[in-house]
Amino acid sequence: MNVGYLGPRGTFTEQAAVIMAPEDNIIPYHSFWDALEAVQRDEIDEAIVPIENSIEGTVNATIDTLIFDVDLYIQELLILPIEQCLLAKKGMTIENIKTVYSHSHALPQCKNFFREKLPNADGVATSSTAEGVATVAKAAEGEPVAAIGAKTAAQLYGLEILAEGIQDNKSNFTQFIRVSKNPTEIPYNNKKTTICFSTVDEPGSLYKLLDIFSIFDVNMSKIVSRPMRNRPMEYVFIIDLQTQDNEKDVRDALTMIKRKTSFFKNLGSYNVVDIR
Amino acid sequence: MNVGYLGPRGTFTEQAAVIMAPEDNIIPYHSFWDALEAVQRDEIDEAIVPIENSIEGTVNATIDTLIFDVDLYIQELLILPIEQCLLAKKGMTIENIKTVYSHSHALPQCKNFFREKLPNADGVATSSTAEGVATVAKAAEGEPVAAIGAKTAAQLYGLEILAEGIQDNKSNFTQFIRVSKNPTEIPYNNKKTTICFSTVDEPGSLYKLLDIFSIFDVNMSKIVSRPMRNRPMEYVFIIDLQTQDNEKDVRDALTMIKRKTSFFKNLGSYNVVDIR
Repeated sequence: MNVGYLGPRGTFTEQAAVIMAPEDNIIPYHSFWDALEAVQRDEIDEAIVPIENSIEGTVNATIDTLIFDVDLYIQELLILPIEQCLLAKKGMTIENIKTVYSHSHALPQCKNFFREKLPNADGVATSSTAEGVATVAKAAEGEPVAAIGAKTAAQLYGLEILAEGIQDNKSNFTQFIRVSKNPTEIPYNNKKTTICFSTVDEPGSLYKLLDIFSIFDVNMSKIVSRPMRNRPMEYVFIIDLQTQDNEKDVRDALTMIKRKTSFFKNLGSYNVVDIR
Repeated sequence: MNVGYLGPRGTFTEQAAVIMAPEDNIIPYHSFWDALEAVQRDEIDEAIVPIENSIEGTVNATIDTLIFDVDLYIQELLILPIEQCLLAKKGMTIENIKTVYSHSHALPQCKNFFREKLPNADGVATSSTAEGVATVAKAAEGEPVAAIGAKTAAQLYGLEILAEGIQDNKSNFTQFIRVSKNPTEIPYNNKKTTICFSTVDEPGSLYKLLDIFSIFDVNMSKIVSRPMRNRPMEYVFIIDLQTQDNEKDVRDALTMIKRKTSFFKNLGSYNVVDIR
């Protein structure tokens, strides 16, 4: 199988891809959107993308693409611990550094380290942690630049590790999903099911919908919301349901939810692999 | 009064500050966090920061700071239309551009324009749209760079407008809040009240809390969630309530919500100014 992931090589998503698709051919893509669209176009079989970080929250680019741009189903979820490192060329010290390149989610994860050790350095966002590392690897000798990224990226790009575990929160982890066109709407003993819907813009309409889950004894483990595309001030709610050993209740609850929502999409039922 | 805002000059937040604090001395700050902390330390009286964009959703840096780092209250909310422009030095054409600088929220707002007109250009995130504009203004003559930002920034930094209204969604607007230490927990005829809380991690606990609003006939106009800091897999829910002409019901509902939540914070009651 051909499995796309958010590249370039050396990202945390590559780590996730190696764990989630050990037997497959993994292919780096330039953005979440590119990887997911490639599955939609049958260019590849599956894609592995981050969906939530424990500090930064939902990865909006991933969730918006799944809701609005493609019709794919989640096959599996992986919870991976994240350890951020400060990487630079040989001979650099933390005191030298003036500019730090990394993904826009990784920079704020290291806010305290910045304040204490790099008070005068600027953060520059790149499209992935590995792209930040690559930028530093290509920099001229002696240029005061560093990157925040995975330990494995240091080796890949020939950089030194100036500091390890620099993220504010020592229990930092990211959830990655493996998605494909294979429909998994029905929770055949899969732990979790993720659905999304938008309601009519009426007072109390969200409450009435959540009441349906209560009636059928289906537990929600998470609720997040995103703006509805092209409909200012309206929202899509993304809800994780606990769906093990309650298939009939889930089916009936979702039948009612579909009838009572203006937009509904099932993003799939899947198992969770937690290697924290 | 001294009022801080997300600078530098020429940002959309400056536009909001001019509208929300027309009589006051407005002062640019380097980040949301710096502006809000400055109010907390009594360095300034108020701060004006963005809280939500109609395409990109909640501004996480603002909401997390209000929840976890400061004790400030929302005084007023402004809904401002956003028109993004592509700005570059005199003599540049769209076809020349290789790198586009802008805020990490502004770049994805122009995804379709990028795909159609700038398929080979890279987006580089800056801490504000105006910082992106300043970077382009400082670039060497003939360097193939442009910025996405407000029309007013073009004048301020002496750049030309290569394209106007380049955001994907023509009904793009941002909500800005004015905050201070003045407590506004009680909705003295203010339209909206924003609260946040986290629940014990038990099935159905969120549902039970929302039930309290239903019992007291208090309507929720929005619910979003953010990860609870230092507590992986737990969430804070941020809820907007419609609180005009129902002060007693709101008081009673919030009394019960406080009793039944492990963390609770009232972010204030305020009126909405909508200039769409």
